Amino acid sequence: MDLMDAIKGRRSIRRYKATPVPDDLLREVLTAARHAPSADNAQPWRILVIRDEDTKRKLVAAANGQKFIAQAPVVLVICGIPDEAFPTVGGYMSSHVIDASIAIDHLTLMAHAVGLGTCWIAWFKEDNVREVLSIPEDVRVIAMTPLGYPDEIPERIPRKNLEDLVIYDRYQ
Amino acid sequence: MDLMDAIKGRRSIRRYKATPVPDDLLREVLTAARHAPSADNAQPWRILVIRDEDTKRKLVAAANGQKFIAQAPVVLVICGIPDEAFPTVGGYMSSHVIDASIAIDHLTLMAHAVGLGTCWIAWFKEDNVREVLSIPEDVRVIAMTPLGYPDEIPERIPRKNLEDLVIYDRYQ
Repeated sequence: MDLMDAIKGRRSIRRYKATPVPDDLLREVLTAARHAPSADNAQPWRILVIRDEDTKRKLVAAANGQKFIAQAPVVLVICGIPDEAFPTVGGYMSSHVIDASIAIDHLTLMAHAVGLGTCWIAWFKEDNVREVLSIPEDVRVIAMTPLGYPDEIPERIPRKNLEDLVIYDRYQ
Repeated sequence: MDLMDAIKGRRSIRRYKATPVPDDLLREVLTAARHAPSADNAQPWRILVIRDEDTKRKLVAAANGQKFIAQAPVVLVICGIPDEAFPTVGGYMSSHVIDASIAIDHLTLMAHAVGLGTCWIAWFKEDNVREVLSIPEDVRVIAMTPLGYPDEIPERIPRKNLEDLVIYDRYQ
């Protein structure tokens, strides 16, 4: 799929078909994440692939009861690893959140390109996700997303005008 | 350009031609960023477009002397705004870093698709960038990138194997 078509066409999908995700498409989606750039090429992120029904139900609970997450045949949980990351982006923060976000962005675009849906989930309790998946203390949970065939075609959500997002020369 | 070709073909460009960036291509690149998803669709980010030579030189100093940044005709500085963002991703962090990162990822992929080069810059001093561009205290600088026609074709940088990045079922 054309890049701009993928960028403009991707939606947050909150209804999924029960149809399984073929292994080759899952691999394609994960491969897009694999090619994400990262500070110093550290690749300080991991993706957990969850297909077990009971585990998915526990992740719904950890995500404040957002039931559609478990409707998808696959749930991906994306983690960042501060100890492996560039420690001082801008002199003040670890790169692991940025690096993991790039990987997820690649993944969600590629999912759309192969006919699958995703939905960035930000509203969850990290400690509860950590407990469900035995994620160690030094690994941070950045986001999760369901992955499956969409059972809805949401409208495009409006964006701010370019003029409200882009500033020329200096901030004020 | 095909999405996977853009993902696999994008490089960090550290040599630029003096050729100006056409306005329509700059707009295309910024439009790709504009369509980035964000938590609650808050779009808590801004992109500063810098073309003034003196300002670019000051940004080089703020980026620890990485001279190639000013070689490009345009420098983009991407900011995140915590006060506008979803405050509790995973129950523990503001979404502004994630949201800004998605916008930058779209932008760097689209730049490659239209024949332009970029390079995510993480090694800079936020306070110095803030001073050069009059960025307020409550706005965070997430990254910057030069934007221009590449004057090099870097080799692909190796990535970890999928097996080292993807985990099935639970972390350990």
